[in-house]
Amino acid sequence: MRSISILGATGSVGEQTLDLVRRNGEEWKVVALTAHSNVAALAAMAREFDAEVAVIADETRLDELRAALAGSGIEAAGGRAALCEAASRPVDMTVAAIVGCAGLGPVMAAIEQGGTIALANKEALVSAGEVMTEAVKRHGATLLPVDSEHNAIFQCLSGNRIEDVRSITLTASGGPLRLVENLDAVTPEQAIAHPNWDMGAKISVDSATMFNKGLELIEAHHLFPVGLDRIRIVVHPQSVIHSMVEYRDGSTLAQLGPSDMRVPIASCLAWPLRMDTPMAPLDLAAIGELSFFAPDEVRFPATRLAREAAQAGGAAPAILNAANEIAVAAFLERKIAFSRIPLLVERVLSEGQLPDPPRTLEEVLGVDGSARKRANELLELA
Amino acid sequence: MRSISILGATGSVGEQTLDLVRRNGEEWKVVALTAHSNVAALAAMAREFDAEVAVIADETRLDELRAALAGSGIEAAGGRAALCEAASRPVDMTVAAIVGCAGLGPVMAAIEQGGTIALANKEALVSAGEVMTEAVKRHGATLLPVDSEHNAIFQCLSGNRIEDVRSITLTASGGPLRLVENLDAVTPEQAIAHPNWDMGAKISVDSATMFNKGLELIEAHHLFPVGLDRIRIVVHPQSVIHSMVEYRDGSTLAQLGPSDMRVPIASCLAWPLRMDTPMAPLDLAAIGELSFFAPDEVRFPATRLAREAAQAGGAAPAILNAANEIAVAAFLERKIAFSRIPLLVERVLSEGQLPDPPRTLEEVLGVDGSARKRANELLELA
Repeated sequence: MRSISILGATGSVGEQTLDLVRRNGEEWKVVALTAHSNVAALAAMAREFDAEVAVIADETRLDELRAALAGSGIEAAGGRAALCEAASRPVDMTVAAIVGCAGLGPVMAAIEQGGTIALANKEALVSAGEVMTEAVKRHGATLLPVDSEHNAIFQCLSGNRIEDVRSITLTASGGPLRLVENLDAVTPEQAIAHPNWDMGAKISVDSATMFNKGLELIEAHHLFPVGLDRIRIVVHPQSVIHSMVEYRDGSTLAQLGPSDMRVPIASCLAWPLRMDTPMAPLDLAAIGELSFFAPDEVRFPATRLAREAAQAGGAAPAILNAANEIAVAAFLERKIAFSRIPLLVERVLSEGQLPDPPRTLEEVLGVDGSARKRANELLELA
Repeated sequence: MRSISILGATGSVGEQTLDLVRRNGEEWKVVALTAHSNVAALAAMAREFDAEVAVIADETRLDELRAALAGSGIEAAGGRAALCEAASRPVDMTVAAIVGCAGLGPVMAAIEQGGTIALANKEALVSAGEVMTEAVKRHGATLLPVDSEHNAIFQCLSGNRIEDVRSITLTASGGPLRLVENLDAVTPEQAIAHPNWDMGAKISVDSATMFNKGLELIEAHHLFPVGLDRIRIVVHPQSVIHSMVEYRDGSTLAQLGPSDMRVPIASCLAWPLRMDTPMAPLDLAAIGELSFFAPDEVRFPATRLAREAAQAGGAAPAILNAANEIAVAAFLERKIAFSRIPLLVERVLSEGQLPDPPRTLEEVLGVDGSARKRANELLELA
């Protein structure tokens, strides 16, 4: 039996992880479950899986959580410090699925205990790439990527050496707006209607702008040290091939599968083995056709901006990520047009002095905070 | 430096192997080179690569070979026994690329020295599957598949356990006749014009009838023990995906690459590492589209016949292979119509009493001989 903690248990990745744990129940002992503010869901999960501790990030709801867990024998805790304490308890596997920079502290706490971390928190690697990969090395932790693209690459690297890689290709669905002519008129509803994946609003808009792919490019750059110029993007509207690795001998390995996050999550949970999931077999004859296009970086400049930020290094990726979060929120509140999202990000990036790479979590959060502030100022000026 | 012998050096796979050895010359010491009857090419290769021994299978040409190698210090030999003796010399890597059942003896001799064999001789595994896989086990040899499909599967299995495989999918180009309406009127010229691969006449016709895929199905069944019902075929006209493995978690790994045999050969030569080849990078955006169809086993019954032969076991696969060789030769000599190839094979198969599986090389060759004889008789009766 292996032990597992899930940071962000009530979100989409958390729920799907627990679905797999439920199906393979005898193999897992659940240690910590955490949630942002959904006390009812957290308490229900903690009871079902007999967790050791349940933590609610929003400390004002701790009494509510205590009441919901009364008599269960499950420890209840609240607030950011409790989140990090729970994440630091030794387990075989931590699923890090807290969205945004809020997840950074708990992820670092999990890394410091030296176990295996299935990382679904994209922003953590984007904003704190060096800080995080260095901590992984120092503490002997193992990082397994949950993001479907990076998990695909990880699988395609199995049994191979990173120095034999000629290039890595991230596939991109191209989002719901690939064929929309006037990007200025796009509404939040249109941007959120992703053709292949059922995701949250933020990541759906990121997929529509291609910032999602840009963030993934930066993420890949940290996870797979092959050099930025060897990481490519190809638009593949069917999202059947999740990503590819080409080797020096001309062989390309690709990972294919349904657009269901339980596939990459299962790959992490069972790694280096495999576990059952309830997926239907892949039927390419039924799918019929897979198509591929070069990305259009004129209409969708996000991947170019991300590449430039990764190239510049230092604080640039954290600034890009922060400015994008503010711009997406403003778009969802109908304060700015869709096509202004990349413009705002580019503006904040171009203004930011690029100091030395942030060396600590605090410095990352400092860069993140001032980029958000500047993005908000620019929004008000407009 | 590693040592290598190439059985069938003047054929297509042999030449392409030597092309790679030439490009990575400092890594290889060539021990034995063998050829069927092309003395000039064999002697030139033996001199270029400073081979230890050159063997010509056609013994009547041995004097000619001796003359061509005079003064080189390279040993010259001729005939079937010499072929097996040369194959039995200990080397790190044997490339077994003799076409047809003629290659069986030398391949077995190579297996018995316990090294690594890159196997390009399809008929060997089809006709002598059990005999060969048992010898591999007994002598601690390692079998690496050169066939692009099986090499793709081998690569997709890297780092994984065979018991985690849900299914294996062989891709088939569908051949040049997939969209031809009247198969009765097909000429040898049409059947040989393969859209993606530049191959010999026999294998090109096999590709047109789908017997090539049928033989590969039997081959896969011996190489990858997942059960026949878990080995599938999908028609994929572009031949970019060379084959796939689906795992129990819903992940499918696929190997993609150019239609150039140097890719799978290089994969074998460098295994478990990788080596450089002169392949252009895969550009899916330039290719644009990959399409997939279920195979049509009514018009092209070969894969059904092969599956039934593999299911029946015993001598059936050897009979299928032998009858097909005779039928293809008759078609190429314009003695029978294209659509009679599978009919003849089915007829010979249905008549053959199925004795116990052949347990020795001699028994395999016996089955092969009588199936050929019976196929020829049926041709004359018609």
